[in-house]
Amino acid sequence: MTDMDDTTPAELDAVLTAASAAARPLAALRPRERVALLTAVADTLDGAADELVPLAGEESGLLEGRLRGELLRTTVQLRSFAAVLEDGGCLDAVIDRALPKTPLGPRPDLRRMLVPLGPVLVFAASNFPFAFSVAGGDTASALAAGCPVVVKAHPGHPRLSVRTAELIVRALRAGGAPEGSFALVTGLETGRSALLDPRIKAAAFTGSVPAGRALFDLAAARPAPIPFYGELGSLNPAFVTPGAVVARGAEVAEGYVASFTLGTGQFCTKPGLLFLPRGHGLDERLAKAARAVPATRMLHPGVYDGYRKRSAAMSTADGVRTLVEGGTGEDLTAAPTLLVTDVPTLRRHREVLLEEAFGPLSVVVEYADEDELLSMAEEFEGNLTATVHAEPAEADLVRPLLAVLSERAGRLVYNGWPTGVAVTAAMHHGGPYPATTAALHTSVGSSAITRFLRPVAYQDIPQDLLPEALRDDNPLGVPQRIDGD
Amino acid sequence: MTDMDDTTPAELDAVLTAASAAARPLAALRPRERVALLTAVADTLDGAADELVPLAGEESGLLEGRLRGELLRTTVQLRSFAAVLEDGGCLDAVIDRALPKTPLGPRPDLRRMLVPLGPVLVFAASNFPFAFSVAGGDTASALAAGCPVVVKAHPGHPRLSVRTAELIVRALRAGGAPEGSFALVTGLETGRSALLDPRIKAAAFTGSVPAGRALFDLAAARPAPIPFYGELGSLNPAFVTPGAVVARGAEVAEGYVASFTLGTGQFCTKPGLLFLPRGHGLDERLAKAARAVPATRMLHPGVYDGYRKRSAAMSTADGVRTLVEGGTGEDLTAAPTLLVTDVPTLRRHREVLLEEAFGPLSVVVEYADEDELLSMAEEFEGNLTATVHAEPAEADLVRPLLAVLSERAGRLVYNGWPTGVAVTAAMHHGGPYPATTAALHTSVGSSAITRFLRPVAYQDIPQDLLPEALRDDNPLGVPQRIDGD
Repeated sequence: MTDMDDTTPAELDAVLTAASAAARPLAALRPRERVALLTAVADTLDGAADELVPLAGEESGLLEGRLRGELLRTTVQLRSFAAVLEDGGCLDAVIDRALPKTPLGPRPDLRRMLVPLGPVLVFAASNFPFAFSVAGGDTASALAAGCPVVVKAHPGHPRLSVRTAELIVRALRAGGAPEGSFALVTGLETGRSALLDPRIKAAAFTGSVPAGRALFDLAAARPAPIPFYGELGSLNPAFVTPGAVVARGAEVAEGYVASFTLGTGQFCTKPGLLFLPRGHGLDERLAKAARAVPATRMLHPGVYDGYRKRSAAMSTADGVRTLVEGGTGEDLTAAPTLLVTDVPTLRRHREVLLEEAFGPLSVVVEYADEDELLSMAEEFEGNLTATVHAEPAEADLVRPLLAVLSERAGRLVYNGWPTGVAVTAAMHHGGPYPATTAALHTSVGSSAITRFLRPVAYQDIPQDLLPEALRDDNPLGVPQRIDGD
Repeated sequence: MTDMDDTTPAELDAVLTAASAAARPLAALRPRERVALLTAVADTLDGAADELVPLAGEESGLLEGRLRGELLRTTVQLRSFAAVLEDGGCLDAVIDRALPKTPLGPRPDLRRMLVPLGPVLVFAASNFPFAFSVAGGDTASALAAGCPVVVKAHPGHPRLSVRTAELIVRALRAGGAPEGSFALVTGLETGRSALLDPRIKAAAFTGSVPAGRALFDLAAARPAPIPFYGELGSLNPAFVTPGAVVARGAEVAEGYVASFTLGTGQFCTKPGLLFLPRGHGLDERLAKAARAVPATRMLHPGVYDGYRKRSAAMSTADGVRTLVEGGTGEDLTAAPTLLVTDVPTLRRHREVLLEEAFGPLSVVVEYADEDELLSMAEEFEGNLTATVHAEPAEADLVRPLLAVLSERAGRLVYNGWPTGVAVTAAMHHGGPYPATTAALHTSVGSSAITRFLRPVAYQDIPQDLLPEALRDDNPLGVPQRIDGD
């Protein structure tokens, strides 16, 4: 795919040396100075939309409207992390002043705050060439945290990656960031070498389960293991109650088709399964909606080939019926495919049907009764999202269903659809394995910054030697929790 | 050491089934109900001090005063996590209400909070039979988070472990906790099996680097990896400036000896290295102070044997001089040993001298000048603590030294000593690898609870189906961050 040469080992070494050298001065910048850097990057990218969007379109096949929206999302995200920094609460400054007497003896002056981890390696994704790539949420949150960033480019959009990186470097340089604060590298082997390098202190990844797990294993096996924030795979099951079918079955069917076909089904939050009560009578609606969606281009040959194999395996599994056969066409295109099965078949073909199919395919699963629905819900592994469509009178079913799902998903959606991840403080984009390799963390939403920060406590340090965020005179004006108040 | 039989596989299976069954009802308890449980455990243990302290003394060889203090610390810790729960801020409730219009389109109602991970496996340590064992900080913070706890007993104090567990189970049962909320298991193989069991969702460990790393590797290699919070090894270097030697050299020497010999040197925060400027003239003071400390009993034969081997290897390394030869005696006793070397020797014998020696031994390292001191500081791996003794006029040296150390240690101590870990919100007991396997987290201090919590976002969920902490009427009265305010 790529017309770029892979980064050589010598080039990577230089990049990592520069990132390592940048770590301390970047960490030493005041939060407001980092706010200015993030804002400068956002402004630069917004200003280059007319250049970047066509480039992204050429390389990804995505349409202009979608790409303009995605670029806006990317710069909104950069600005939102700037706002998080401006607020200062993310430093989690806590001050417990000395106490001459406690039940456990005298207490020293103790102050704790979060500090940057050091250089972060970001593996870019292919499905969002802006929002989860070179200037995406991982880069934004790591820079906001004060960590130098090395992005391993995704080969699906090489020229866009290089150009985005140039613009970021230019904006950071103009804003006074230390040299080495940001770099782009290319090549599978380069990514692996960087991940194993002791100068890299954390990594973030969005992609497939096999690739993500292989990298997670490398990170964990290092002499000094590092946090690896991998967002791997998610089925995003959606559960429709009998009441919801009666009240608004057609609307549910249409919303579902729109959600699973969005972006040619290449979203991490695509609903891969829709549970409907047996005898739902929505086949025709579903088929009509799915057939109305035209074939669209998939991202790159790797995704396209994988989709062809997965959809063939799923649709030929014994007990699975094809309601709509969308198929794939020339030029990497695919039209929606809709399969139908029941819970016993889902259980029997777990390995085939309970794996993410990246592309415009989803499976309608007919359940016999509430017990079967609840017991099946208990069998799910980790997911980014789980969705419930229900009516107010059905709380006796919905309450236990949400309880089960909250143990297995990072976000619960009610009478809506999981695609479309709002950029807001309360968002959580994560979940138990295999949705992510780090269920405590999120890659979207303001707390994504905490992935790249670690606490340090300062005991009896004189005022003039303390970090500004922990000083009594609080020159940065950050929130400080003092003596538990 | 143990007179208990190991837990059988069938018994372990029953324990894990019960813990798994307890997870949902325990998570569903209101924070105040969990406050009552923690308080009941603390009250019960306080009430049993006259029974527990002698038992602990018999099995650990530790003296009564120390053990009474440690038990108090343990119950203060349980009560402090109860206070954290009572405050409710640890739930991190964030509410972003729906917005019909944002630059990225309409925003749904999004609410996020932290929920318990599920059953937690705690590997008890030997050196604090109360505070880092069955009822220690890991257990307290996991129960506070709402997670059932399975403790793998340390064989160094088997009867105390069993008795403590009985008291915890009794207190939890009387307080209305679900059966299975707490259990004790024994045996090395039992611990490994439990760690690999899918019903265990996180693990915490305090112990040696080899044991901790082996368990970390198992946790990371699971089909579904889990967080492993290991506190492994730390050298806790202390750096003394020329000014501090002149101003209060004798005091520094005596404080150092008191710190590294405390608890027969068996503290994770023991200062293992003291950097002194060449020509410091403190040999006599140091030797006198070390010789004044009597031989005391070490915890168990495993620690004692390890200490004999490590101290022999260190004292016979070429370029290392023995200032005080404390040696070891009958009945597992050891008296302080003080070695002296210089920075080039430290570098040359990195493998021998830069490994933790658990026991009453420390190394004085003479540095030639400030450059040598700073460059050596840069060579340290992760530590729980780093200590600096300096005078106000030396800020030009201390400032860069603290900057270097803050990248390598979880707690910086100024003109004090690292032993004695205050139980307070601002405490951080953690650090980069190998101090811990999870540098973002702490095992002491109020944020230790976050190790066992994960975020869940609720999108457009009706009020009556939301967790109470996220409802508009806020019946729990927890802090809610609403629309960014």
